[in-house]
Amino acid sequence: MDLKELILKTRSFRRFDESYKIDSKIFESLIDLARLSNSGANKQPLKYLYFNNEKDCEKIFPYLAWAGYFTEWPGPDKGERPTGYIIILGDKSISDIFGVDHGIAAHSIMLGATAAGLGGCIIGSIKRDELSNEFSVPDNFEILLVIALGKPVENVIIEDIKDSDVKYWRDSNKNHHVPKRSLNELIIKLK
Amino acid sequence: MDLKELILKTRSFRRFDESYKIDSKIFESLIDLARLSNSGANKQPLKYLYFNNEKDCEKIFPYLAWAGYFTEWPGPDKGERPTGYIIILGDKSISDIFGVDHGIAAHSIMLGATAAGLGGCIIGSIKRDELSNEFSVPDNFEILLVIALGKPVENVIIEDIKDSDVKYWRDSNKNHHVPKRSLNELIIKLK
Repeated sequence: MDLKELILKTRSFRRFDESYKIDSKIFESLIDLARLSNSGANKQPLKYLYFNNEKDCEKIFPYLAWAGYFTEWPGPDKGERPTGYIIILGDKSISDIFGVDHGIAAHSIMLGATAAGLGGCIIGSIKRDELSNEFSVPDNFEILLVIALGKPVENVIIEDIKDSDVKYWRDSNKNHHVPKRSLNELIIKLK
Repeated sequence: MDLKELILKTRSFRRFDESYKIDSKIFESLIDLARLSNSGANKQPLKYLYFNNEKDCEKIFPYLAWAGYFTEWPGPDKGERPTGYIIILGDKSISDIFGVDHGIAAHSIMLGATAAGLGGCIIGSIKRDELSNEFSVPDNFEILLVIALGKPVENVIIEDIKDSDVKYWRDSNKNHHVPKRSLNELIIKLK
């Protein structure tokens, strides 16, 4: 799979086959991809927690907000929830600022998930204090992002944007549509 | 090239063959990879400027800080400077916050550069106001990151970290060494 195909397939998935278990080795290989990625001033201040057992996944789920544009949808139903999570932590004993390191790391993890036949969703809307308390995360760690992972059961379709409306939407067959701005709109030509 | 190999090869390069010109089409394909990557709430608030002519590259160079740990090194000498730049802008008319979008976008661009036989460096230490003035960047755009690009002429070697020292270093043959923390150090096991 070339890079463009890999990126095209790396969509945000929010419905999964909850019977599919993800092996710990997969998580370690995904975190290894993040480890080997670029880091500002090479400080490498990110640490990782991963969870793949049912009980932990159940605990994490209520602390996350899903699909902000679907105001009527509280997130995936039982049976379609993620079967794994990676929590990206900032280690404040290493640095106070994390720059774009967690964006880079999350992207490596998401691309790696696609390459491994999985899919995920980067979640930034997190009840951080509650999640931190739930697992007694030590004080020197700040929760930066959560990546939900699983075997996707939804079809995500990229399409051209219409009327500047960026809101993703679901059709009657539950296909998830994602409008993308055009390249022409993104590249600024200065006079 | 599989993803791990691609990520391993995507290092921060700071010395380039300045005789190598990068075609505009390459820039557009790199920005297209960023365009197709995940964006928080699908807002897609990033815009892009790219430069590949000598005059513009000369203008941009002095506004960037290179290799913070090499306090004696002002950046690449003439003949080894980047032959292209992408400036990632945040469009404040779309959003006030850019989350980790620019980290994700920059990583896609860097991976794409590797796949195209090029290399680059994500630079966050930028004289933003001066650079903005230089090109009369409209007020609604905030400069988030600059990615320097070119045909690398340096060898970058990843190695295991020693004594927790994250500082990259150069050997007498100008090889650039980057110590990386171990996977064991990065994965936190909670009790």
